[in-house]
Amino acid sequence: MQQREKFMREALKQAVKAKELDEVPVGAVVVRNGEVIARAYNTKNKNKNALLHAELEVLKKAQKVLGDWHLLDCDLYVTLEPCPMCAGACINTRLRAVYFGAYDPKAGCCGSLYNLPEDKRFNHRVEVVGGILGQECATILTEFFKSKRKGV
Amino acid sequence: MQQREKFMREALKQAVKAKELDEVPVGAVVVRNGEVIARAYNTKNKNKNALLHAELEVLKKAQKVLGDWHLLDCDLYVTLEPCPMCAGACINTRLRAVYFGAYDPKAGCCGSLYNLPEDKRFNHRVEVVGGILGQECATILTEFFKSKRKGV
Repeated sequence: MQQREKFMREALKQAVKAKELDEVPVGAVVVRNGEVIARAYNTKNKNKNALLHAELEVLKKAQKVLGDWHLLDCDLYVTLEPCPMCAGACINTRLRAVYFGAYDPKAGCCGSLYNLPEDKRFNHRVEVVGGILGQECATILTEFFKSKRKGV
Repeated sequence: MQQREKFMREALKQAVKAKELDEVPVGAVVVRNGEVIARAYNTKNKNKNALLHAELEVLKKAQKVLGDWHLLDCDLYVTLEPCPMCAGACINTRLRAVYFGAYDPKAGCCGSLYNLPEDKRFNHRVEVVGGILGQECATILTEFFKSKRKGV
């Protein structure tokens, strides 16, 4: 469990980078053999690209590092529960596990609205564990949106 | 209906390009105001990137053309029913409609296993219509996999 929190702290560092750029603060890392091999954060607004969620970016980087689209022995750590697009990307890249922080009751597809990565009908299953440093991962998001509403 | 078939033929042309590169033949176009504004095909193997499905590529291109991540008055035409990742991308980019050709009973998330774009719980709904030139779109895929099995 300590190991999982350690890697979620790395994902949180990425979320802070997004926040500093005035992006919705979501961060992610990919871990293989106990080592972080890729890091990324959400840059949707900066790049005017709704596909640039932290997860898609970090999975792309991990594929580049390994020179392979199979991420079979890799785990994703992400501060917010993945949306349908990102949950689907976890299946497509053949990830081993998804560890996420805060639950997303409005769009989460790793337990909240659906649990796509663990659906046995797909050709690959990804283990899902939610709520790792859940409070901290939620707080950085709620504070961001609070400041937005205040126009800070 | 003729209009839809016309644009699906454009998507099929993209699928043929994928086939010529020995990629799984799936093609897509984005249409706005009766005009094709972006075209793409699957290049997953060439780029060793499981995220390079035709849909993600064509949505990225359309965002670039419009300089905006909102594709509110845009429609996607794709030869194969979108997987969870691509169905999610249709929601995230705020597309108006998804028109697809062949159904994918193993991974399709626009009616087969799920119908994610029409799920009212997400913050945006995308209309879904399947089976446009369905036979032609399926045939190019089945012939591709048949030739693979024969080692052609």
